[in-house]
Amino acid sequence: MPHVKHNGVNIYYESYGKGFPIVFLHPFSTNGNIWHFQTFNFARTHQCVIIDERGHGRSDKPQQGYAIPEMAADVLAVLDELHIDKAVFVGNSIGGILTMQINLDAPHRVVGNVIISSGTNLGAGFPPGAMAAFQQDLVGAFSGLMDNAVGSRTKRERPEVLDLIKGYFLAEQNFPQRVFLTAAGDPNGLFNWNITARLKDIRKPTIVFAGEDDQATPVASNKLLADNIPGAQLRVLNGIGHFYEIERPDDFSRDLRQFVTQVAT
Amino acid sequence: MPHVKHNGVNIYYESYGKGFPIVFLHPFSTNGNIWHFQTFNFARTHQCVIIDERGHGRSDKPQQGYAIPEMAADVLAVLDELHIDKAVFVGNSIGGILTMQINLDAPHRVVGNVIISSGTNLGAGFPPGAMAAFQQDLVGAFSGLMDNAVGSRTKRERPEVLDLIKGYFLAEQNFPQRVFLTAAGDPNGLFNWNITARLKDIRKPTIVFAGEDDQATPVASNKLLADNIPGAQLRVLNGIGHFYEIERPDDFSRDLRQFVTQVAT
Repeated sequence: MPHVKHNGVNIYYESYGKGFPIVFLHPFSTNGNIWHFQTFNFARTHQCVIIDERGHGRSDKPQQGYAIPEMAADVLAVLDELHIDKAVFVGNSIGGILTMQINLDAPHRVVGNVIISSGTNLGAGFPPGAMAAFQQDLVGAFSGLMDNAVGSRTKRERPEVLDLIKGYFLAEQNFPQRVFLTAAGDPNGLFNWNITARLKDIRKPTIVFAGEDDQATPVASNKLLADNIPGAQLRVLNGIGHFYEIERPDDFSRDLRQFVTQVAT
Repeated sequence: MPHVKHNGVNIYYESYGKGFPIVFLHPFSTNGNIWHFQTFNFARTHQCVIIDERGHGRSDKPQQGYAIPEMAADVLAVLDELHIDKAVFVGNSIGGILTMQINLDAPHRVVGNVIISSGTNLGAGFPPGAMAAFQQDLVGAFSGLMDNAVGSRTKRERPEVLDLIKGYFLAEQNFPQRVFLTAAGDPNGLFNWNITARLKDIRKPTIVFAGEDDQATPVASNKLLADNIPGAQLRVLNGIGHFYEIERPDDFSRDLRQFVTQVAT
């Protein structure tokens, strides 16, 4: 199975289909399979590139090196390997963060951005004691965070989603818990990364999806992105939490197709 | 990512979690990711082994070699590689067929069987002209088959499932259509494979799930298995079709946990 080695770290990817490329970037502690429903929908018409970010799934999980620009460069290394010049980027949570970083570092590779439940300077929004709670009881604190990150309707209608999200995190071979603490402590890792002042420099068509029930990256966190990325559109989703792509796969695929059709025809 | 080479064919697998092993074998034309919800549920308590069968996903797709005993031997090669002596086998459709074959060829490796929507001598049950239809318009005929294989409730509540099943089939990198025709034409391939007279030799605890709405392997096809495998139990599922694990992931995980707890404690 394909890997590309970037700065000594093996990054796993899959590519299905032909057509204008769409790159899918998953949330922290999950893996690229979270996009499974979209992958095989869009592979009929597009080249779908699924990446396991470093520290996750079938990619290497180095002891250090979880700064966002380094992780974004992993994604570009995969695109280079696949000879992909430009793509639509679809990122959820840290995947959205990587998408925004790619817009700053390599804007010529981007034709549009679909950002699901993300933000910048996320750590600043944490309640007092949140980081200490993660350090003392990571499994308990993370589990509590996820209970409040999955939508109310999803919990009723698709109980397997919360179960999956927790399961990804608990499977050591998928996501070693040290990766959480290392990334959280990195001065440019997902919680400390702050591009508030540079959001205005993201110039490609952007849509931001925010789940009304998401307490991990609340609506305000996503609204800040949409308000500051020129021309960006915000869509707030009722009954949905942090994981639109797997909470309502069919609705998200429809929304994604509409966006992709607009920006990449 | 791990592969094992068996008779020159690279077989892709993933293993998550520790504990008594459960081996998951997917339906024809899909891949191991169809078990995603179960993988990360059971990885908390068990070793989950996910295999892409030859011809599928990230495994090699040879021009020939789709006899069921050969494909079953691929699975045992993965278990050997992982030093797994015995396991619970969970197989859907051709995955159930591989499970039954393993029971005949290597009964000492099996502690129990969960068979979802499967059968034996399946080609004999096809309506006249079905094979000709596959040969003339494979995409159309397969698509029609799947329309009648996914449950009515699933189509209403989880429209992404039918879309996924069709998408797997249409993604050439996942499943080349020549594999369908080669396997269908194999004298011991999935449609011609017939162990009716040997079902009585399967001696491990077995549960068979049949979807009431499944026209691909109808209830009668599954009842034949349960009636002839000594002590096997049949469960008929209302509103469900051919793909219980992804049509009702949460219900299936609950049923699977109950079975595994009974046979492997």
